Amino acid sequence: MPDVPGRLLARTLAAIGPADPQATKAARLRQRHLTKPLGSLGVLEDLSVQLAGLAGSCPPPVPEPAAVAVFAADHGVAVHGISVWPQEVTVQMVANYLAGGAAVNVFARQAGAHLTVVDVGIAGPVADPPPGCPVPLLRRRVRPGTADLTTGPAMTRDEAVRSVETGITVAHELVDAGFRCLLTAEMGIGNTTTSAVLIAAFTGAGADAVTGRGGGLSTERRRHKVAVVRAALDRHRRDQNRTDQNRPGPADPLGVLADVGGLEHGALAGLVLGAAERRVPVILDGVIAGAAALVAAALAPDSMAACVAGHRSAEPGHAITLEHLGLSHPLVDLGLRLGEGTGALLALPLVQTACRALREMATFDSGGVSVRDESLADD
Amino acid sequence: MPDVPGRLLARTLAAIGPADPQATKAARLRQRHLTKPLGSLGVLEDLSVQLAGLAGSCPPPVPEPAAVAVFAADHGVAVHGISVWPQEVTVQMVANYLAGGAAVNVFARQAGAHLTVVDVGIAGPVADPPPGCPVPLLRRRVRPGTADLTTGPAMTRDEAVRSVETGITVAHELVDAGFRCLLTAEMGIGNTTTSAVLIAAFTGAGADAVTGRGGGLSTERRRHKVAVVRAALDRHRRDQNRTDQNRPGPADPLGVLADVGGLEHGALAGLVLGAAERRVPVILDGVIAGAAALVAAALAPDSMAACVAGHRSAEPGHAITLEHLGLSHPLVDLGLRLGEGTGALLALPLVQTACRALREMATFDSGGVSVRDESLADD
Repeated sequence: MPDVPGRLLARTLAAIGPADPQATKAARLRQRHLTKPLGSLGVLEDLSVQLAGLAGSCPPPVPEPAAVAVFAADHGVAVHGISVWPQEVTVQMVANYLAGGAAVNVFARQAGAHLTVVDVGIAGPVADPPPGCPVPLLRRRVRPGTADLTTGPAMTRDEAVRSVETGITVAHELVDAGFRCLLTAEMGIGNTTTSAVLIAAFTGAGADAVTGRGGGLSTERRRHKVAVVRAALDRHRRDQNRTDQNRPGPADPLGVLADVGGLEHGALAGLVLGAAERRVPVILDGVIAGAAALVAAALAPDSMAACVAGHRSAEPGHAITLEHLGLSHPLVDLGLRLGEGTGALLALPLVQTACRALREMATFDSGGVSVRDESLADD
Repeated sequence: MPDVPGRLLARTLAAIGPADPQATKAARLRQRHLTKPLGSLGVLEDLSVQLAGLAGSCPPPVPEPAAVAVFAADHGVAVHGISVWPQEVTVQMVANYLAGGAAVNVFARQAGAHLTVVDVGIAGPVADPPPGCPVPLLRRRVRPGTADLTTGPAMTRDEAVRSVETGITVAHELVDAGFRCLLTAEMGIGNTTTSAVLIAAFTGAGADAVTGRGGGLSTERRRHKVAVVRAALDRHRRDQNRTDQNRPGPADPLGVLADVGGLEHGALAGLVLGAAERRVPVILDGVIAGAAALVAAALAPDSMAACVAGHRSAEPGHAITLEHLGLSHPLVDLGLRLGEGTGALLALPLVQTACRALREMATFDSGGVSVRDESLADD
């Protein structure tokens, strides 16, 4: 971690640039010469062009090996009973990750992705990994859970900056270790509630529109969750109208994060920024990653050139978020609402396939295939 | 190939049974105890239950290793200019598969699937694979391309039976070689036209609704393709009203296949039937596989218990087909319209992940995770 809070973030933001136009153009051209009808690989063709623009080369390198980072943190808002799961499940699930029994472990094994767990703000004690555990646990706790955002700021501005810098640092460590694709994951009881507030704050959508059932709320309990989200938003907007220097304005993404975000949101935003700086693609998981990406996009719009929407979650705020981010083609849409990186991990082989198609397919010339009998101009 | 045409098919149809109800029930129950909110893996949960029912065990075996079979054949209807690609592209693409440069090669390498190419009815000579080629070429040509289905039957009833039995035999060979998941693929200039006619014949949909742009037709040339599909359907329906014994009735799937199908459609239907008999899952690719599955479903409705819709193609007839087959949740929906097994190969890791989740995830007991604080009854 850097000594002066904010310096790493400032350096990272300054280093993030847009997609490379020449590599982008070269990739579009190359797609026209591969032995298939132009456009017949649908979204995968656009994805390959994006990867080329990010890498600054055509064809781009295959995004492998891949690493998924689970950022775990707790939320003060959990006192309001907005989850069917008690808060201690955050710690229990971290133990499950370290023991290899959670969905993210299974999905990561299938996809060949490395898994790292980061305690960026869990409220309770976390036991050491069992001997021989292949999953590293990074102890980077900024604070033991956020405060209740219905009554005041979730965290201080410095803590928000430190959570973002934690994510940047993890991105740098993973890229330095050789990983060429990063995947977002998170665990934190209450974090679909915090995400709903963040999404409403950034997009202007209403509390009802952005609030879902999370980990399995009944219709009645979801109604209570909407009321909690609305209370937090009301408090946030009142505080935005304060006249002092520290008020969280909509043009101040770090202020919004500090006021109504979670520590894993900050770290996930940092992971996006750190990956974008190193020009390595990031596959976003679901609604929590989307809420964090709103922070990253507000800090550095160009960071979206590194982002791929892994899936569309069943949580209603997610589609609103993807729309706002301009990530209109989530790769997987199977009604998942688990989080934990599962949607991003399902998307990983699709991203790798898109890249490999551009790299490895024969062209009409090299493959000895007749060019079709009408102009390409209709495409 | 069996000596008496029809005997293998009859034996196979007799051996296909429904999903095992006990394994199905056990899988549904097991999903409730895994360390995740019930239902949070969406379509993957249903898929794991289907795999258990097919295997007759819970958890079911992981569907690996996987093999994709590309059935290649030509179509007499190609004389009507219904494709932007000349007919010799069928042979050229087979050479591309054997040289490793086509999309299916790249996608199969990424997914870790074995690739086999089967000439079930190409019109021209096919060269031997290059030395050291890892892709086997099975020479099982039933006839060198079909006849023009706008003027008469595409093939004889015996040829249709032999094409289906070719697919059954390939399924048996692959399962005997140890493969535990089969994927459909095909190549044949003109086969989206033949598929459109088959889909209209089986579902009753109109020519315009089932006809797409195939490998890249302009709006005007697509209109011509619709007219060809309509002419074929009109001829088919006139012949259905004949009074002789050989008329192709809608209750006679082999008659419909012979009258308006392709040789690869027969073989793909056979692959489905052979896999269903051996209780091995089949991942269907796009619209051509869907048209073939209509034949398989008509011959043996229980064979659908083995089928997973790999993706939804951009071809308009595909959604109609999936609806008719009751395969309502295609796993990938990315605007692909290439065929060649690419959609099925993208879906393979999703199917394997669904199975692994049921097999490998910890339960609330084993994982030491608190059960949530309200009844499971709301799910």
